[in-house]
Amino acid sequence: MSWTIKDIPVKELSTGEVLSIKTFTLSNGEGPHIHIQASVHGAEIQGNAVILKLMEALKGQSIQGSITLIPMANPYATLNKHGTYTYGRYNPVTGDNWNRNYVDIVKASGFDLDEFCNSHKDSTWEDIKSSYKTKLSQAFSKYTNTLKDQNRIQDNNKINIILQELALGADGILDLHTGPTATRYLYSAEYEEAISKHMLFRHVLVIPNDFAGAMDEASFMPWIHLKDAFAKLGRDINLDVESFTLEFGSEETFRMDEGSKDVESILNYLKFKNVLAGEPEAANPHYSKLKDYNTMYAPRGGLVDYHVAPGDHFKEGDKLATFYQMKDIDPENPIASCSHTLVANADGIVINRCPSSNVHQGMELFQIMTNTYR
Amino acid sequence: MSWTIKDIPVKELSTGEVLSIKTFTLSNGEGPHIHIQASVHGAEIQGNAVILKLMEALKGQSIQGSITLIPMANPYATLNKHGTYTYGRYNPVTGDNWNRNYVDIVKASGFDLDEFCNSHKDSTWEDIKSSYKTKLSQAFSKYTNTLKDQNRIQDNNKINIILQELALGADGILDLHTGPTATRYLYSAEYEEAISKHMLFRHVLVIPNDFAGAMDEASFMPWIHLKDAFAKLGRDINLDVESFTLEFGSEETFRMDEGSKDVESILNYLKFKNVLAGEPEAANPHYSKLKDYNTMYAPRGGLVDYHVAPGDHFKEGDKLATFYQMKDIDPENPIASCSHTLVANADGIVINRCPSSNVHQGMELFQIMTNTYR
Amino acid sequence: MSWTIKDIPVKELSTGEVLSIKTFTLSNGEGPHIHIQASVHGAEIQGNAVILKLMEALKGQSIQGSITLIPMANPYATLNKHGTYTYGRYNPVTGDNWNRNYVDIVKASGFDLDEFCNSHKDSTWEDIKSSYKTKLSQAFSKYTNTLKDQNRIQDNNKINIILQELALGADGILDLHTGPTATRYLYSAEYEEAISKHMLFRHVLVIPNDFAGAMDEASFMPWIHLKDAFAKLGRDINLDVESFTLEFGSEETFRMDEGSKDVESILNYLKFKNVLAGEPEAANPHYSKLKDYNTMYAPRGGLVDYHVAPGDHFKEGDKLATFYQMKDIDPENPIASCSHTLVANADGIVINRCPSSNVHQGMELFQIMTNTYR
Amino acid sequence: MSWTIKDIPVKELSTGEVLSIKTFTLSNGEGPHIHIQASVHGAEIQGNAVILKLMEALKGQSIQGSITLIPMANPYATLNKHGTYTYGRYNPVTGDNWNRNYVDIVKASGFDLDEFCNSHKDSTWEDIKSSYKTKLSQAFSKYTNTLKDQNRIQDNNKINIILQELALGADGILDLHTGPTATRYLYSAEYEEAISKHMLFRHVLVIPNDFAGAMDEASFMPWIHLKDAFAKLGRDINLDVESFTLEFGSEETFRMDEGSKDVESILNYLKFKNVLAGEPEAANPHYSKLKDYNTMYAPRGGLVDYHVAPGDHFKEGDKLATFYQMKDIDPENPIASCSHTLVANADGIVINRCPSSNVHQGMELFQIMTNTYR
Repeated sequence: MSWTIKDIPVKELSTGEVLSIKTFTLSNGEGPHIHIQASVHGAEIQGNAVILKLMEALKGQSIQGSITLIPMANPYATLNKHGTYTYGRYNPVTGDNWNRNYVDIVKASGFDLDEFCNSHKDSTWEDIKSSYKTKLSQAFSKYTNTLKDQNRIQDNNKINIILQELALGADGILDLHTGPTATRYLYSAEYEEAISKHMLFRHVLVIPNDFAGAMDEASFMPWIHLKDAFAKLGRDINLDVESFTLEFGSEETFRMDEGSKDVESILNYLKFKNVLAGEPEAANPHYSKLKDYNTMYAPRGGLVDYHVAPGDHFKEGDKLATFYQMKDIDPENPIASCSHTLVANADGIVINRCPSSNVHQGMELFQIMTNTYR
Repeated sequence: MSWTIKDIPVKELSTGEVLSIKTFTLSNGEGPHIHIQASVHGAEIQGNAVILKLMEALKGQSIQGSITLIPMANPYATLNKHGTYTYGRYNPVTGDNWNRNYVDIVKASGFDLDEFCNSHKDSTWEDIKSSYKTKLSQAFSKYTNTLKDQNRIQDNNKINIILQELALGADGILDLHTGPTATRYLYSAEYEEAISKHMLFRHVLVIPNDFAGAMDEASFMPWIHLKDAFAKLGRDINLDVESFTLEFGSEETFRMDEGSKDVESILNYLKFKNVLAGEPEAANPHYSKLKDYNTMYAPRGGLVDYHVAPGDHFKEGDKLATFYQMKDIDPENPIASCSHTLVANADGIVINRCPSSNVHQGMELFQIMTNTYR
Repeated sequence: MSWTIKDIPVKELSTGEVLSIKTFTLSNGEGPHIHIQASVHGAEIQGNAVILKLMEALKGQSIQGSITLIPMANPYATLNKHGTYTYGRYNPVTGDNWNRNYVDIVKASGFDLDEFCNSHKDSTWEDIKSSYKTKLSQAFSKYTNTLKDQNRIQDNNKINIILQELALGADGILDLHTGPTATRYLYSAEYEEAISKHMLFRHVLVIPNDFAGAMDEASFMPWIHLKDAFAKLGRDINLDVESFTLEFGSEETFRMDEGSKDVESILNYLKFKNVLAGEPEAANPHYSKLKDYNTMYAPRGGLVDYHVAPGDHFKEGDKLATFYQMKDIDPENPIASCSHTLVANADGIVINRCPSSNVHQGMELFQIMTNTYR
Repeated sequence: MSWTIKDIPVKELSTGEVLSIKTFTLSNGEGPHIHIQASVHGAEIQGNAVILKLMEALKGQSIQGSITLIPMANPYATLNKHGTYTYGRYNPVTGDNWNRNYVDIVKASGFDLDEFCNSHKDSTWEDIKSSYKTKLSQAFSKYTNTLKDQNRIQDNNKINIILQELALGADGILDLHTGPTATRYLYSAEYEEAISKHMLFRHVLVIPNDFAGAMDEASFMPWIHLKDAFAKLGRDINLDVESFTLEFGSEETFRMDEGSKDVESILNYLKFKNVLAGEPEAANPHYSKLKDYNTMYAPRGGLVDYHVAPGDHFKEGDKLATFYQMKDIDPENPIASCSHTLVANADGIVINRCPSSNVHQGMELFQIMTNTYR
């Protein structure tokens, strides 16, 4: 049982440096393959601490199957600085969000699922899975070769294509992100909601089994399509491939002590997958559906005093933030004249907060979970 | 016949300044309404010169109908500087392209087109149009009120909603843009391809009658939906509402002398619409379909010597650009050792070029029309 | 006793909006004039909370003399966003630090101090002060008029000239700033070190009585020059004009609750100046000389786990931060292989810290006070 | 006679990539050493074309002495993109101009020039030069070692220190830059004004023999100090070490065809230095003193139509540019109501122009030479 390290070039800069990513793979015999990547958004670096802690935890452990770890998965996004902060969420040239350019490969490649399902109608699930992975891999290669032939590999999709291809054969895909100023929370698709309790997050955002361009979705969509195609044939598939986005707190932050706690999520999932020995625990998280996950946009511009912090629970009528507008000050009555308080119109939990108190009208102030359930 | 000027606040800054847009409307009796806006992308300022030249040309002229002109339609996009250049294509906070957040209002509002068409089955087209505009306006108000109630007016859509609502009743919508380093060209939907020759552009890019978020599409989609709905009832509608995106050369450029020529496009269209008296001319442009409009991405990083300029026609095998990579230099054979030439693999016309010769792998180098026809 | 409000235009944007600042002045009879401004660096907004709290504290109070308050003193710096953060320390077009373009007016204007001192050799200090302020004001007007005539008012100095002229007649000048991620501390010139204890800060950075372009220096330099000129004539002047930079914590932060504490500094200073009635308190701060104020630059690039926070005291040999370099990971020994710990080579107090853990070689990691004394 | 290539690491990124520069040195026997570097400002890339053309021209040529070429001398500055443009003039983290952090090493190191000159009073100039270079090199090493010991090597000075040290022993230092939108021109110190005609530029800007932080100045200051120190001893030194900044047109531009012409400047200088055989030519440039080199700042904000281009000569009273302010439009009289024309108040030559027509009040519009002479 030993590590394999690969260096994969991802982008040649005008200056000649070739940015690359490293994949660290640990394998032992048959078993599930787990793919874990961090920092696709360049400022979201805590996942790298988690990966280091995971490597540390795996020392001397015996695994069953294989794990691929990709720290610093998008170096171009991480190296861009405007001032001291990292401009890592969007491509600095094109403005594109780095986590919206993955591909729904079954659709994009014109994969003939009906043909596949018909020919595997009576196969075991293990055989189906194995055969499907092979076919997916072929379809993906063909798809990317076409892009290359047509010179359609661009700034916005190259890193995504590379990462998605690396994750294609995995049985568990964990994409490690953070929010802006944020609490810890998990994106889980509806089909894996029951399993998500083993990720040990306190907040779970349940998203539809649909595609909107992100890595988690790109990784589970082939299996959703497969399940749907078999359903049409009357066979019910119980998927055992999961894909989650794990949000480990705030951007620009790298804390090894918090990494020690964060890694528990992943170690527990590895137990759940039988990659590590041991009984997985289950948490009792707060769930919220994507439709109940509300972004509050700044109703005006001004300086903002935030009254609630990520992780806080609030009630309808609670004060969330106060806007102060210096242009409106009446010095005889300074605070009342220039301030407006934003009040919650429903109960909820604060998940993300704008990292700045200097806010123009229309900027994202908060993202909150409402209609939470356990 | 006189001008009406309105000032519409569009965004309160944290500093208290409220950015606003001005609409200048000239009306005279019954007739079509033409909506013209410039600079939704902040660095694309030549349209403002065109609007000034248009106002100048309208002095002492008699029009039939009405024209609304909106220069500097997105002031927040225009005021952002990073260095001496304008960061105007994308929202500086969110990275979103300012011309991708309009709305397909018929779909978004759940407009009941079948009901509408059935009840107007035998109406005249003029009555249908008038009634449809009223209904669209109601649907749009309802839609935006819901957004407001749910605090979903954000940085990325507010200016788009305001502009789209202003253009809702128009019979001609002209959105004035520029490319990066670019020649002049026109976006025309398929349904208006025949009419597009009256816009007097030398290059016409023909896009599907579909929605992808841009102003021109958002403005013609209600009419496409209407035409389709009547087609199901067996009635063929000959649309006389047009929506074009006009690309007036390169960003960061403002030239009144070129504006004198650019405005001819619009004056001719106004004649075509009978808003101005006179016989419209027709050009003989090069057309290309969107599927034949190719973006060439940099296959490597380096310093780029461009061999073709926007507007140039080239043949398969022509040299388009040479990449030089300083890290690869062998001083005994300097140029050969570090250079790679990009050759055209089809005939075409250069439309846009990257404004910088300092290019990372994956950046957009050229946008070219292929399979052109006249 | 009432407030006077003035609106002063400071910059016309390309879009036509004219950014302005507001001055709020409260006066009552004879007495010192105090000038207080906030947010010359655009992300350093806590001073605005302090000004609001000060206005609130002044309600119903009787002052002796006058106070001018300028919140949001540099709106162009505050409105610039790159991502969610504010690009407010440097001019986005030119890169110039907004607090380095003030002027040493005595030198720049060629003020004849010898002549002035000779003609006021035997005047009272009050007469000297009054006459000097008048002469300074004339010199400043002449200086700025020359700049205007020569079209040398630029992006980088206009706001500074306006603010400096507003502060010219003041007996106390307080420039409210913040650090990046920072504790509260005070910049005090050597000549006012003894007085600085009345500002009630825990950390005082003692800078030379010299000019390096900042507001505090520009405001005290005329008095230093005057004192020096009289010293040559054998007369010792005990200056009673002070100029401080007050650093209220971290950028991007606006907290009214902390403002309640922060304003105590200013209220106490107003008592010290007899603008407010009451006995001023004195703190027992840690002092450090500018020469002992060390910036620690990142000796390498990597992800940084900070072990000390602003305000922390540390000892020689203490661990300050650990760098983790993902490219160096040996998965058999992950943490040891890729980490380097930075150890203090002297005792000190952390004042500022880089707000990001994503750090290139050479970036500022910490600013620390060493050789502190009380 | 062959090339030596060295790779010098200059900056470790957080992502682990180590940016490096390459030096290419050609030597042959005794003779002067020439140091040529390009792209210290990241967007100013034409110098790299010139270096390639120079290498090409040197093929099969015999030189006397040595030449060091450093293309892409500041890779961190070149790789930063905000949008498609390069943010290369200023450090993206600190805002510092990359060509203002060199050091006046004689002053900074406390070099004892009196002692040196006294001990070389009667030496030949060749001996003095040789000995001085050795001493400078020692002083520089000591200086940089102190910086390293004190952890004062930072983002803003590391690349400058490396480049300056590489150039320390040179007899000719050529720093290849460009302007924003610019004509070709040369910075020459007063002491080398007579020689500057051999650089074959049409425009020469004559700067004082003083230090303001730039590479050219840092490279000639040791020789100015030496000349001054010998002058005090009554010995007149005729300096034969030159240092120029060569401005090759506009930023973001890389043109090999123009490089063919640009390289003539350098080849001619090499002849003047006897590094290449042949008689150097002399041009008849327009000279202007730095005090007559005027920056025109935008007197208002607006969209700018430029009437003169870099390289143009204009007369007092000529129209230079017109500002158009969309907020001021009166549609009855559109152009007159919203435009203001800037008129030259002296004869001059346009050297630089702002690359954007979208201009806020206070931005640099033009840099012009006045009081030119030949």
